[in-house]
Amino acid sequence: MAVYTEVTDEALSAFLAGYDLGAVSSFKGIAEGVENSNFLMHSQTGRYILTLYEKRVREEDLPFFIGLMEHLAKRGVNCPQPVRSRNGEALGRLAGRPAAIVTFLDGLWIRRPSARHCASVGEALGRIHKAGADFGPRRPNALSIGGWPALFQTAKARADEVAPDLAAETAAELGALQAIWPSDLPSGVIHADLFPDNVFFLGEALSGLIDFYFACNDALAYDLAIALNAWCFEPDVSFNITKGMALINGYERVRRLGDREVEALPVLARGAALRFMLTRLVDWLNVPPDAKVVPHDPLEYLRKMRFHRKVTSARDYGLLR
Amino acid sequence: MAVYTEVTDEALSAFLAGYDLGAVSSFKGIAEGVENSNFLMHSQTGRYILTLYEKRVREEDLPFFIGLMEHLAKRGVNCPQPVRSRNGEALGRLAGRPAAIVTFLDGLWIRRPSARHCASVGEALGRIHKAGADFGPRRPNALSIGGWPALFQTAKARADEVAPDLAAETAAELGALQAIWPSDLPSGVIHADLFPDNVFFLGEALSGLIDFYFACNDALAYDLAIALNAWCFEPDVSFNITKGMALINGYERVRRLGDREVEALPVLARGAALRFMLTRLVDWLNVPPDAKVVPHDPLEYLRKMRFHRKVTSARDYGLLR
Repeated sequence: MAVYTEVTDEALSAFLAGYDLGAVSSFKGIAEGVENSNFLMHSQTGRYILTLYEKRVREEDLPFFIGLMEHLAKRGVNCPQPVRSRNGEALGRLAGRPAAIVTFLDGLWIRRPSARHCASVGEALGRIHKAGADFGPRRPNALSIGGWPALFQTAKARADEVAPDLAAETAAELGALQAIWPSDLPSGVIHADLFPDNVFFLGEALSGLIDFYFACNDALAYDLAIALNAWCFEPDVSFNITKGMALINGYERVRRLGDREVEALPVLARGAALRFMLTRLVDWLNVPPDAKVVPHDPLEYLRKMRFHRKVTSARDYGLLR
Repeated sequence: MAVYTEVTDEALSAFLAGYDLGAVSSFKGIAEGVENSNFLMHSQTGRYILTLYEKRVREEDLPFFIGLMEHLAKRGVNCPQPVRSRNGEALGRLAGRPAAIVTFLDGLWIRRPSARHCASVGEALGRIHKAGADFGPRRPNALSIGGWPALFQTAKARADEVAPDLAAETAAELGALQAIWPSDLPSGVIHADLFPDNVFFLGEALSGLIDFYFACNDALAYDLAIALNAWCFEPDVSFNITKGMALINGYERVRRLGDREVEALPVLARGAALRFMLTRLVDWLNVPPDAKVVPHDPLEYLRKMRFHRKVTSARDYGLLR
């Protein structure tokens, strides 16, 4: 969510003329996030986020994301609500990019989550899965096991620049996961990127969820595995089982995991760690000269991958059955 | 105004506990600008900007900037007002940095200013100069002619990487300006960085001025020369005399230029162009590996410098006397 695209006054005015938002009194680029250009906008009718979708988001996927946010918001998930223009369109074009306006959500994202935050996040994840159950459109997960070999190919030749023997370790991990990856777990709409900067809190209460631009159809438990990676490790990359227990218990308050999901959790967590290691590695090796964000460290996820490899059952994450 | 420093929840809470701003409902890093980390914060009592001063701002200068904003705001200049803590302090520390909270100003900055915007900016600049006349503290301009040789030394050896013979042309320009730089012009507090992104408009009306972190004591007409450079050139770096006339007329509606100031304007404009060329050149040659902003192009100001060199009198800027 850095700002990659400049919006001129004339272009903004022309774009907003199609909406009923009243006069704009403030329009500021937001420094957080990495994928799209986001602006916080105040107008006579309220506060909004205007997003310009940059090249990493496929334009044909946008109706899925916009539709999903509308669907979830209607079912009580506190996520941004797409604002429709007078013509009824939730997607337009601005500064040569696809663009959308969504409602602004109050709240702050938590830099150092506690077990209580993890419990709330688990519960919210369960609610997304429940609310998404009757969402019609489908979008395959391009960043699941089928997409990892291509990602790895992009980075393979230079992987060892980042860590000794990283290429060999990654190839072995990929091979191992391909042999044991579960294919028949309960699936549905997953968020697929529920990191701390995508979850807002007001005090102790979870107030909103944002950034549905990786959402797709995949195994529901894989989404929980991503969240375990994102929320339950300490800054020194040690796993905090109290947080793991809180996250999983929070999730199960809304949706109980089946036996096969429990059994698959360590493999899914390994896969989730590999997925973020790979995308971070590719970004790390391909920082453009005009980069506006510092890439995330792939080695954090290499260490998480190694942790999960030693896990023998979901008990190691705090699931006590 | 990118975000260079991460603020943890605990550190933010502890910092805000010293203020009477009520509960915070939103806290977002702003992507604009280059020098400090800025966050837009909503609380029960309103909207604020929280700034962490990064290494390029000298800590001992902060009381000057804070005091100046308070002074100008009291005299009707619509600039951010520093918010004092319960202990009466306008400056604190957060995340290892000096930090201040100021009021939020409505308005949008104009990407493509018209002559009418230039007229308003000229008038606002005049008002700053008038309102600053009885401001007591003093801060010399480290980025005026006395500071340019040191800046040039930093960049000299590699200047020709940026443009052919740039080192020789800059040395000649510096020498020429040192010989003719005026020393006895009316002086006072100047903004010294009144670029479009530091001026907000609501519709056609100027609504606020921000970023006083280059403010200092210097020749008042030098500030006008900086604004001529910043506002009155077209994207192809041709000078727009209609905008120049509007800017100068706007200024003179508040403060009429003396004869010596009129005479000195071309030299001051050359100097202002050299100053921005030099700081941009230094930044261009020293992009840190973790850069969060793209440096401005020094060649834009090289071309402005060349334009001013051919100017024979302030008439060429649109001053018709």
